Amino acid sequence: MKRRSRSAPLGLAPHEKLVRLAAASTDVISLAGGLPDPTLFPTKELGDALFRALSRSHDSPLQYGWPEGDEALRAYVAGELERRGGDVSPSDVIITSGAQQAIAIALSSIPRCRRVEVDPETYPGALDIFRGAGLHVNDRPFGAQALYVMPSVSNPLGQRMSDGRKREILAQALAERSFVIEDDANAETWFSGELVRPLVADQRDRVFHVGTFSKTLCPGLRIGWLVPPPSLARRALREKQRLDLQANGLAQALLVEYLKNGHFESHKRRARERYRKKARRLIDSVRRHLPKLRFVPPGGGFSLWIQSELELDDEELLKAAIAHGVSFDPGRLFRVSRGGLALRLCYSAIEERDIDEGVQRLARALERCLEPARRVARD
Amino acid sequence: MKRRSRSAPLGLAPHEKLVRLAAASTDVISLAGGLPDPTLFPTKELGDALFRALSRSHDSPLQYGWPEGDEALRAYVAGELERRGGDVSPSDVIITSGAQQAIAIALSSIPRCRRVEVDPETYPGALDIFRGAGLHVNDRPFGAQALYVMPSVSNPLGQRMSDGRKREILAQALAERSFVIEDDANAETWFSGELVRPLVADQRDRVFHVGTFSKTLCPGLRIGWLVPPPSLARRALREKQRLDLQANGLAQALLVEYLKNGHFESHKRRARERYRKKARRLIDSVRRHLPKLRFVPPGGGFSLWIQSELELDDEELLKAAIAHGVSFDPGRLFRVSRGGLALRLCYSAIEERDIDEGVQRLARALERCLEPARRVARD
Repeated sequence: MKRRSRSAPLGLAPHEKLVRLAAASTDVISLAGGLPDPTLFPTKELGDALFRALSRSHDSPLQYGWPEGDEALRAYVAGELERRGGDVSPSDVIITSGAQQAIAIALSSIPRCRRVEVDPETYPGALDIFRGAGLHVNDRPFGAQALYVMPSVSNPLGQRMSDGRKREILAQALAERSFVIEDDANAETWFSGELVRPLVADQRDRVFHVGTFSKTLCPGLRIGWLVPPPSLARRALREKQRLDLQANGLAQALLVEYLKNGHFESHKRRARERYRKKARRLIDSVRRHLPKLRFVPPGGGFSLWIQSELELDDEELLKAAIAHGVSFDPGRLFRVSRGGLALRLCYSAIEERDIDEGVQRLARALERCLEPARRVARD
Repeated sequence: MKRRSRSAPLGLAPHEKLVRLAAASTDVISLAGGLPDPTLFPTKELGDALFRALSRSHDSPLQYGWPEGDEALRAYVAGELERRGGDVSPSDVIITSGAQQAIAIALSSIPRCRRVEVDPETYPGALDIFRGAGLHVNDRPFGAQALYVMPSVSNPLGQRMSDGRKREILAQALAERSFVIEDDANAETWFSGELVRPLVADQRDRVFHVGTFSKTLCPGLRIGWLVPPPSLARRALREKQRLDLQANGLAQALLVEYLKNGHFESHKRRARERYRKKARRLIDSVRRHLPKLRFVPPGGGFSLWIQSELELDDEELLKAAIAHGVSFDPGRLFRVSRGGLALRLCYSAIEERDIDEGVQRLARALERCLEPARRVARD
């Protein structure tokens, strides 16, 4: 689904080369990438919204804007958080260039941050940020200044955090005077549509809340948001300005117009229903063709996280998989500790009718990879 | 011209509060901000281009894209640099979220960068980046690992660098194994339209080249570019991905479609002519009403940089100016060393007919600020 790049950059890591290779081939069924379903994008409505935004007689969205973002958009985000129990005002919200930037800003705003704790399986983009900043990252408590979590819907697992664990996290942050980065990017993909109370609703002073339109609407707009703790709000805004002055005005104005028409709620319902159906199809298929692999059925999100005790290299398996005409995301991207073979299979962007064929190809690739080991064992 | 924000963030610096105050009042004539003229934005053509971009049957610009950016846009940038003598291929170009981000990426890509040398008057956004990263910044040679310059058209001065100085800079970078960040953002605003050979054309290995569509087309798209030295290309691309995954796809696709219609060259000619006329008007007005202030007439850019020997605080003057119904950018924002009173007066976004009235108001405010000093002198 990703656009092809003829001028692929030099010096990519092996798994990146494989991902590019797979994306460039129309013969490869992609279970990789974690992309939203592009057939869900309300292209016509977004085009109409943009037309209205460009027709505004004052305040052209093509001009520079303030670093904190569009007033109406900030009010929308604050209102949504209020519906979920939060006490957040529009002036607390910073519009960012996607959730990725919101996480980067949160991290830079935490004073003297040296260590970050993450879940055993976590979002690779966040790991990039933490490692790029030279921080120590661990998936166990080690006196970190920041804890990065996805309580509403986690990626890659698609699970929801228990209330007990949430209370524990907030108590720990208060006791250790550390900060929680609450990545809420996937919140609205929960299949049943039920939204949970975010951490930021129970604790403003220790929580950075991160959200985005990328999962519910489309990622190409690059519009997300950050609600920093009040004591670090100024720092966070300076960091936002330092990084790229402001989020793009065109997309912000488009969103403001789109949100006015009131179709977003029904759009999100339709999207959740689609993802729920595709998840079901993938789960059935994996159970049938890959019976030895373990997973917990996701309640939301875009993917199935699969683990096994097999001591098989995930990059080796990916190479074989691409040769068999299917791709996936190697598990190593999501982990800081080593473990047995793991992979993320995404059901979000793939066409439903391709899911079963994709899984069958993966099963054949896995079989092929295990053959030499068996042969050795037999010899 | 900046959009008003009712929820202005807390904890702004004094000059920021003044700028916001001035921007929120329709009674204040703004000689501040360095914004392009919004009446130049080809809104209708950009809307049409966007419509075409959204009508593409494949590769939706609303989906995620690669971090390096749109292939066609990279080819355009490489082609433009080639026209100016550069040997740059599309695969050397990274599309960024504006020039600001390109500078931030350049800086993070330089190994062990502790010190940055800048011009005595320079772009405040770059100073934000350098200071935010905790670097030492100086406007004199001090063994810096990076030199930040604007050779084609400088901001705030609107001047062009001499060939001798350019050779010196490149020789120094080679000798000291340091890097040059060449900010070419204002290149195409040079009034005569003549484009110079960029530093990157003479030296790929030591030069980061930075450009943008913000000055020629409109800033709200947030699309710029970076050409890093080949040896640091991989680092730069990782940093781009780490910061916000990719530049927004909608604006990239819009630009690709807009550039196809071939109207960009005539648009740039029209814009240069407009800015040249407004600069002339401002220069005449300053000569008439502020005869004691010194400046060098700019050859391009958006502003007039004014210096004086007066020991008057620029923030005091700004306060008085706003009370008199005019605003400007205080000189301290552009400097790392202290000096006499300096201010940046922007002619770019103001309506031509308001220029003379704005300058007269400023002259009265200056007069008022100097009165107490004179009175003390007389007593």
